[in-house]
This record gives sequence, C-alpha cells and structure tokens, in this order.
Amino acid sequence: MKKAILASTSTLHGQAYLEYLTPHLNDLYGSNKEIIFIPYARPGGISHEKYTAKAKDAFKKANLNIKGIHEYKKPVEALEKAEGIFTGGGNTFLLVSELYRIGIVEVLQKVIAAGTPYMGTSAGTNIGGLTMGTTNDMPIVLPKSFKTLGLVPFNINPHYLDPDTNSTHKGETRETRIKEFHHFNSQPVVGLREGSWLALDNNEVILKGKLSARIFKCNEEAYEVETGTILTDLN
Amino acid sequence: MKKAILASTSTLHGQAYLEYLTPHLNDLYGSNKEIIFIPYARPGGISHEKYTAKAKDAFKKANLNIKGIHEYKKPVEALEKAEGIFTGGGNTFLLVSELYRIGIVEVLQKVIAAGTPYMGTSAGTNIGGLTMGTTNDMPIVLPKSFKTLGLVPFNINPHYLDPDTNSTHKGETRETRIKEFHHFNSQPVVGLREGSWLALDNNEVILKGKLSARIFKCNEEAYEVETGTILTDLN
Repeated sequence: MKKAILASTSTLHGQAYLEYLTPHLNDLYGSNKEIIFIPYARPGGISHEKYTAKAKDAFKKANLNIKGIHEYKKPVEALEKAEGIFTGGGNTFLLVSELYRIGIVEVLQKVIAAGTPYMGTSAGTNIGGLTMGTTNDMPIVLPKSFKTLGLVPFNINPHYLDPDTNSTHKGETRETRIKEFHHFNSQPVVGLREGSWLALDNNEVILKGKLSARIFKCNEEAYEVETGTILTDLN
Repeated sequence: MKKAILASTSTLHGQAYLEYLTPHLNDLYGSNKEIIFIPYARPGGISHEKYTAKAKDAFKKANLNIKGIHEYKKPVEALEKAEGIFTGGGNTFLLVSELYRIGIVEVLQKVIAAGTPYMGTSAGTNIGGLTMGTTNDMPIVLPKSFKTLGLVPFNINPHYLDPDTNSTHKGETRETRIKEFHHFNSQPVVGLREGSWLALDNNEVILKGKLSARIFKCNEEAYEVETGTILTDLN
C-alpha cells in the first residue's frame, strides 16, 4: 500500500525549491490536502519555522497546505491522522536523532505502510532506506540508532556523484565510501543522482527521472540501471 | 609534552604513500624505534595485516619498524610501553568504534599527553580533535561515542576542500556542513587542506605545509591562516 517519492535532491541547479517535483505532488498527495512537514534536518541550521514556511510556499503551487510537525503537541497522533507527510533535506544525523528523541520512527513506518503518502528529499530520502549508513552528511549529533524507516529493502545514497576522473584530491570518492560500507553491511545501495527519484506505488519501487542510477551490491561490481527500472526486489 | 603530527592526508597526488611526510618521521619518532600502528580505519576495507604491511614499507624508509596493535594480546600495555604511535586513515566511524570496543581511548590520551610521539593521517587526524563530528566519512558503523582524543582544543576537518564555484551539484559544500556542525557544537574547526599538517611540540600547535588552513568558529565568518601560524589557543 506504500505510496511515496524518495528524491535525491529538493532542488535542481537553476531551479526553484522543489520545482521539478511540483508536477508530481498531486499524483502523490491528491489536492486540497494538509501535509505534515518534518523540518528536523534543518539545512544550514535554518529554524523549524523558516524551513516550514519555505516548504509551505512550494506546496501552495500544487494547492496543498503544509503544517510543521513541531507545531503539534501530540506528533504521534498527528501523524496517525495525516493526509500526507513530507520530510525535507538537511543533516541526516540531526533528522534521525530528532525522530528517535520525539518517538515518531514507529508511527511513520506504520502509517506509510498503511498508505499515507510520503515524500522525502535528500535526508528525507535517506531515512526511506534501511539505515542512514550511506548518508553524505557530517555527524554533528549522535543519534540513538542508524536504523531508519526501511520503506525500501535497501539503502539510498542521495546526491550520488560520479568520481571526478580529473581530480587530484585524495579524499575518498563516493564509490570508495560505499565499498567501505559493504565491508560491514550487506544491503544493496542505490546511488541516486540529482534529478532522480524512487516512486513507490502499491509496494512497487520504480526509478524515475532522466538519469540512470548506480547500484552497489556487497561483493559485486557496481552497475547502472536505466530510468523506469523496477527495484522492488533489490535486496 | 605532546609531540605529534596530525596530517590532512597520507598521500599527495602523484606521490607514494606517506612520501611527503617521510622526511619528518625521524624528527617525530627518532630513529631505530618500533612504532605501534593502529590500522582500524581500514581504508576500502583492507585487512589489518595488509594495511600494517603498507605502513611498515613506508616507515622502513625512515629506519623505523611498525607493528600492528592487533598483533598484541594486551593492547593497553603495549601502548603504555610504545616508543611511538601511528594511526592511518580510512573510515573514522570504524576507527572510533574499534578504539572504544578495544578500550584504548584513555590510554592513548594518557601516553600521548606524557610524550609518546603520535602521528595521524586523515581519520587518524580526525581523532586528534575533540570529537569526530567533522569527519567526511560515511557512518558505516555506530560508535559508542563521537568523543575523540582531544590532542588539540578544536575539531579538525581533514581533506578540506574549497567550494567548487563551477559546480552545479546541489549536495552541501564542506563549508555548509561545518556551519551545520556549529549549530550544535561550539568548538572551532580547522579545515586542513591536503599537504598541510598540524605539528604539536611541547604543547604548541603549529600549522605546517605549503598551504593556508581555513578556520571556522561558531557564529563568526570563516577565515584563512597562513602556514606557520600558532593555533595552540584556538578554542
């Protein structure tokens, strides 16, 4: 019953916030609905209020209202009744810390499994995977656990970047980092390039957007999958 | 009494492993000594044995022997007697997890404070800071704590990369990530470019290498410091 968009990024170069995703919002959420926004990832340290206002502006274009989860006294009950949920990007460590601190990990899993439409971008997409172990973010706070919602049976690496073959920088490439992940974790990782998203519909997972995605499996060579590929059973 | 080299990277583009640091090894450790190597960061998932062999080859050029900490049955006692310590790069989450699991965080702090020469590169330098909160690595395992050795009164970001002004990629820049860090942590961060290192001598901390470093303080504009700058009191 899951219905979700897990997008690599909120914003494409030269576009407004959520611009490329706006045409898909009504398919996901319907129209004239109130969507609960989870602002806890706080990109650049932005306040919950400012971040919620930014999401509200973008969702208005699709005739959808946004209300921040921090505005509810009883967030679990609010999520149980929600018509839709959107988690914005920012710092994944902070986001996951807050989800555990406030105690909404289980209710998110429950309502999304039952069909409440969900969208995530960047950090909000990271938490759609089995763990946050393939985030690109800095560990600015220590979460209780790295386990996340597991809306898909694999991990996601948003903002996936191909190695720059001209680079003289000796920091690890994204691919090297994911290989390190696979020495200690067995689930596949989907490297989701900017402009790509995973569409979950009736428990089917499909790669959307113009680009291919890069699939990393433990002890296997990485490979590309074209847009439109069904990834439901990638595990 | 601390005597240490905290280097941004082990390897410069076009050079062999530790090549640019080799001329400084005898100043740090003396000659004809046995240095304990901490291989736990396991870059690319390399085994402890292979990683130790690689460090051994490099240290041989400075007439120094290397023995891996994993070869000792009693690592705490081995470190108490060590003539020098070197921690190699790789994944900082893994390194810190292992330091806590094996129980050698406190003994490392104690013996380095008492004068046992220490060198770190990359992840091995990250742990020289107050916390590992400014690592660039992926959270492939969950450490017990992000607190690290605190050989300097600030945090370090190794492999510091300036923002690429031509990039159309929307993932966060290093500077954005460090700003996010400062919403939840107050200590300064030294962005240490590849080829730079911090030299600790008699409790003085000096920036070495050809490049400047970038200093990030909470609620202040970032600024550059030239090589040779004393950073002992940066806190």
